[in-house]
Amino acid sequence: MKLFIPGPVEVRKDLLEVMSDPMIGHRSPEFSELYDDVVSGLQSVMQTDNDVFISTSSATGLLEASVRNTVDEKCLNISNGAFGDRWHEITMRNGKDCRKLEFDWGEPVDSDVVAEAFEEEFYDVVTLVHNESSTGLMNPVKEVSKVLPDDTLLLVDTVSSMGGVDFPVDEYGVDICVFGTQKCMGLPPGLAFCSVSEDAVDRSEVVGDKGYYFSFDIFRKYNGRRQTPTTPNISLLYALEKQLDYIVNEEGVESRWERHSVMANETREWAREHFDVFPASGYESESLTAVENTRDIDVGKLISRLKDKGYVISNGYGDLREETFRIGHLADRQPKEVTELLNIIEEILDL
Amino acid sequence: MKLFIPGPVEVRKDLLEVMSDPMIGHRSPEFSELYDDVVSGLQSVMQTDNDVFISTSSATGLLEASVRNTVDEKCLNISNGAFGDRWHEITMRNGKDCRKLEFDWGEPVDSDVVAEAFEEEFYDVVTLVHNESSTGLMNPVKEVSKVLPDDTLLLVDTVSSMGGVDFPVDEYGVDICVFGTQKCMGLPPGLAFCSVSEDAVDRSEVVGDKGYYFSFDIFRKYNGRRQTPTTPNISLLYALEKQLDYIVNEEGVESRWERHSVMANETREWAREHFDVFPASGYESESLTAVENTRDIDVGKLISRLKDKGYVISNGYGDLREETFRIGHLADRQPKEVTELLNIIEEILDL
Repeated sequence: MKLFIPGPVEVRKDLLEVMSDPMIGHRSPEFSELYDDVVSGLQSVMQTDNDVFISTSSATGLLEASVRNTVDEKCLNISNGAFGDRWHEITMRNGKDCRKLEFDWGEPVDSDVVAEAFEEEFYDVVTLVHNESSTGLMNPVKEVSKVLPDDTLLLVDTVSSMGGVDFPVDEYGVDICVFGTQKCMGLPPGLAFCSVSEDAVDRSEVVGDKGYYFSFDIFRKYNGRRQTPTTPNISLLYALEKQLDYIVNEEGVESRWERHSVMANETREWAREHFDVFPASGYESESLTAVENTRDIDVGKLISRLKDKGYVISNGYGDLREETFRIGHLADRQPKEVTELLNIIEEILDL
Repeated sequence: MKLFIPGPVEVRKDLLEVMSDPMIGHRSPEFSELYDDVVSGLQSVMQTDNDVFISTSSATGLLEASVRNTVDEKCLNISNGAFGDRWHEITMRNGKDCRKLEFDWGEPVDSDVVAEAFEEEFYDVVTLVHNESSTGLMNPVKEVSKVLPDDTLLLVDTVSSMGGVDFPVDEYGVDICVFGTQKCMGLPPGLAFCSVSEDAVDRSEVVGDKGYYFSFDIFRKYNGRRQTPTTPNISLLYALEKQLDYIVNEEGVESRWERHSVMANETREWAREHFDVFPASGYESESLTAVENTRDIDVGKLISRLKDKGYVISNGYGDLREETFRIGHLADRQPKEVTELLNIIEEILDL
């Protein structure tokens, strides 16, 4: 079964195989070598000099950690999709004072409107989703970053873009950047990462009620020893080490971004020819395309017929079900495989 | 390198191999079949009819979840070791009113003293570590359970015993029982489980500030759909499904407990002959033995000489460093391998 969903993604055989390597103790010197290797690879992919923490959880856990450790006054959760909404829910559920600033699904976040929100009230933290996989849109993080006051921390979810899209954390002034193994990194799920700026670390020192598992002070303490606070997923760290070496030293990060771009362009052009692309022009995601169902086809039926042929794509997310369908073109997927999929959809729909 | 540490443990090749199976979507019907299979296997191992939640985290995450979801008034954290202490720290860090009831390290928890604590004050939650891997001791959970009021919830950490030791969750009246993949279950780390009684679920409904990632109401909602709330570690679920089938249908749970017993007895007898066993007699752990260093040997040196020969054991935990050393005999380790290790230690120390 070939997965063309926004994740989980197919994992290369050589990466799966290395997961069978024997266990090592997570308090051993061998582990610290693995840790160092992985952290420096992640810093390259994220283009950051900040500390990177490794969490055995899905990225959702670190989205929770990031607001729990930093929101002292009030948080502005910017949303134009399901994952923006969810970060707001997470912030509320952690007892933080917060406001959701909403934009239409499929429309980019407007930095002028963000600036206006700050004229009314101060927020010490802003959360923003870079790649909204519910709508196939990439938000203009750099523009939003520019309008924020110096003492506001910017937290960004790059769960479905980091490793496939050029996202320079330090250049964009992102204080906390969160992602996981299972999207553009091309690995099984199970580990999540966040880079944390000095400002964010300083803030976390004064914020109370951080709990234990996701507390930055505990992460930082063990980071100093080149260890994780709790038992990490060692098998997945083996695969991550191998994949980071592949991304940085074999494929090269720029080539990896370029390959994602080629696949995205092809899918978009195809969508424009036969249907339409859902998100606003100029803001389309590089890792998945949300196709607008302008022909009123039965999306569920298309998905089921594709499955019979061994291909999996996604229906639209939530309210966008049947209104859109989503094709993932990420991780280690190759352009010719995308072409193959699009040809089969044409055949099925007789386009 | 042969691991005889309290975890992580060596993982059988057939289990590691199944982790290379291709990914499936975690919202697919195939996933729900896997989920059902795993949950019913876990219920067999835990001897419970309660719901079992699956968390992509280490067990520490669910220890946090269990107090965060249930402590409404005040929690009594019973401790006679490092992991009891840590659960108290976790409870405090989650802003819960709590008291630590301490017993000497290596001495079992005394249920009469627990009963006395309740004469002074009411606690709505009690936490207790079953197998204290810092001291190699197993606590009398059944006895403690008997002295608790009906409206007090009993939360038990079976992280380093479940799957290797007979621990009937329902018979002992345990409301929340937490463990993970990486100890007696014989798998890599990365997933944790907890059984949750109806009383615990009811309590969690009225307790506030549960956050998102570890919130029982969210786990329960997705459990109803036979799914996990967030992206789970799918590769590890494949291995877990296979291992549960092995434990329940091939080896048999009773035979597995018996094998752990045989290895524990041999190690204890050996320790009594050449050194001594650290914890109080009658309360020795079945999954690891803490040997009391009565000969004043250089433990660090022993560990390093063993490592040269391809065997790994653990030094004592924290203050017990050099005072004790710990031999893990758990998961899929066989009695003859324990004999082999003990013989080599005798050779090295010229016993």
